[in-house]
Amino acid sequence: MDEFASNYIPLINKCITELLEKKMKKDNEVVKAYYEKIMEYVLAGGKRARPIALLVSYIGSGGEDVDRAVRASISVELLHNSSLVHDDIMDESETRRGLPALHVQYERWFREMASDKFSPPRNSGISLGILGGDSLLELGIEAILESGFPEKATTRSIEEYIIAYRRLIEGQLLDMYLSGLTMPSVEQIIEMLKLKTGALYAASLKIGAILAGREDLLDDLEELGFMIGIAFQIRDDILGLFGDPRKTGKPVDSDIKQGKRTILVTKAYEVLSEDKARKLISLLGKKDLTDDELEFVRNAVIESGALSFSQLMAEEYMERCKDLIDELEMRDDQKELLKEIAERAVRRDK
Amino acid sequence: MDEFASNYIPLINKCITELLEKKMKKDNEVVKAYYEKIMEYVLAGGKRARPIALLVSYIGSGGEDVDRAVRASISVELLHNSSLVHDDIMDESETRRGLPALHVQYERWFREMASDKFSPPRNSGISLGILGGDSLLELGIEAILESGFPEKATTRSIEEYIIAYRRLIEGQLLDMYLSGLTMPSVEQIIEMLKLKTGALYAASLKIGAILAGREDLLDDLEELGFMIGIAFQIRDDILGLFGDPRKTGKPVDSDIKQGKRTILVTKAYEVLSEDKARKLISLLGKKDLTDDELEFVRNAVIESGALSFSQLMAEEYMERCKDLIDELEMRDDQKELLKEIAERAVRRDK
Repeated sequence: MDEFASNYIPLINKCITELLEKKMKKDNEVVKAYYEKIMEYVLAGGKRARPIALLVSYIGSGGEDVDRAVRASISVELLHNSSLVHDDIMDESETRRGLPALHVQYERWFREMASDKFSPPRNSGISLGILGGDSLLELGIEAILESGFPEKATTRSIEEYIIAYRRLIEGQLLDMYLSGLTMPSVEQIIEMLKLKTGALYAASLKIGAILAGREDLLDDLEELGFMIGIAFQIRDDILGLFGDPRKTGKPVDSDIKQGKRTILVTKAYEVLSEDKARKLISLLGKKDLTDDELEFVRNAVIESGALSFSQLMAEEYMERCKDLIDELEMRDDQKELLKEIAERAVRRDK
Repeated sequence: MDEFASNYIPLINKCITELLEKKMKKDNEVVKAYYEKIMEYVLAGGKRARPIALLVSYIGSGGEDVDRAVRASISVELLHNSSLVHDDIMDESETRRGLPALHVQYERWFREMASDKFSPPRNSGISLGILGGDSLLELGIEAILESGFPEKATTRSIEEYIIAYRRLIEGQLLDMYLSGLTMPSVEQIIEMLKLKTGALYAASLKIGAILAGREDLLDDLEELGFMIGIAFQIRDDILGLFGDPRKTGKPVDSDIKQGKRTILVTKAYEVLSEDKARKLISLLGKKDLTDDELEFVRNAVIESGALSFSQLMAEEYMERCKDLIDELEMRDDQKELLKEIAERAVRRDK
């Protein structure tokens, strides 16, 4: 996997750079700078998990035009980034990958341009951030359109891209709704994770197979994508609360401050004594959370068994992924890579 | 034109309803209600100018499968609505078509759901509004994908849809930037209007011709669309300041309160005495604008000749549109309708 990734990540990044640089060839300095910030934002991310999944699926499905596939693969990365940008606005998150969120960068940019001839409009950051997320979404479709595959494969890929987009939106809607509930059920959370994270893995794997002409694989790949995404996100929530911020690029109190309803807190809430459960609830969404309060939450999650429950659940998804991969009629070397993807989703520490 | 419109508007609205109702067939009540609000929002608009332009272009280009064309035509209406929803968030506009803006409706919806088990997250309205605009964008692409045209026509139409979307975004970016400038030039405003309003008319006309297999018309139709859009928007700004709010659904002070840099105020600024020009600038963007201040702006725009300059400019675009239409190799009856579209853009009062 490391070898595969280190072969392809530079090619993926090159395609992203080329697509954005084309947009930056404008007479208008404002438009140019606007796209430049988008490019820097996307290039700051590094793992490219979704394009890699698309490429493994493409090659595993017998696809041979890898240049074109790389060009198409950036679509799912751009869509992912689009959703991150809009999510950060909705969640009022100021940082992403240890750097300022895109809307924060845009806010600064407009502020820096201030002069006696220009005073930045109110809410510049949020407004530009909404546009930035919109641009990333359309750039993803451009990537598919310009990848050079025949029309049928192009149309079908766009269809999957749009289905994923719709699911991402519905997932984010449910996430917002669940975060307003006192405490949702584990099932509600899983349904949300499937849409919010699983759908894009599903689309990545499916687009890979579509571009290779293997429509017969789609149902299995969709299920696989959903499961990888759910497992990935459960692990993400664990890292959010217990990970090393230097590795994750995310402070350990941010999910709690945001009031995120994860399986960790839901499960802890179920098990804790009434007093402690009430205290837990009162801390979710508390913007001025103290260190002691954070420690209370972390201990509650550990002592209630919610931490091991979550990790176990992720591991179970991983096992189901592996079983499903065994059944797939795909190239064996790529099936091994798919298994590694599933494994890393639940065992990574960043 | 009236006959054409009254024939097709019900069919267009039916397609919009069907597409949204399909999305509402969900087990999840929250997702269902979310789409229901989108449907109501889109159906509250009435003129369907962009789908009508697409259909006139399609029929004028010799297209004969009008059922399919109607299904595809709603794409440009949905894209238009997507941009309205996001624009209203950015401009902090609370109303649209005399009704609450979508993000305001969403805010209320979440507030009404409040109970001892659900407390709406902060910024629900804006967050849901961002999602709503995102959904409308993807629904437009779904409309093209599901219209039933051959793959090549589908792919090319999506391409034009995406180009229009990119231009809308860049236009909104420039609009934000210009509204921060003390006073932009008329040229800067025209460039912005071309992107923000012209691009979608251009795409509507082009998609009509693409679906009818007439790629030879595209360059002319693009130019025509840009000009209709610019003319339409100049008239829109006039109606914004001088129209009858009962007809336009928009209070006459809202553009001034928003600090919108229109040709009206730019041109007035150029001509007014230094004192009056300074006063004009100070009133642009003033949220608590008084009636007297509004009257000052309206008088300044009339006395400086900016009002007649703007209307004349719109009429000139209309004349250029008519000349261009005369040259087009399209069906004569539809060319007459195109001329009527250009005429109404600059002579309407709502």
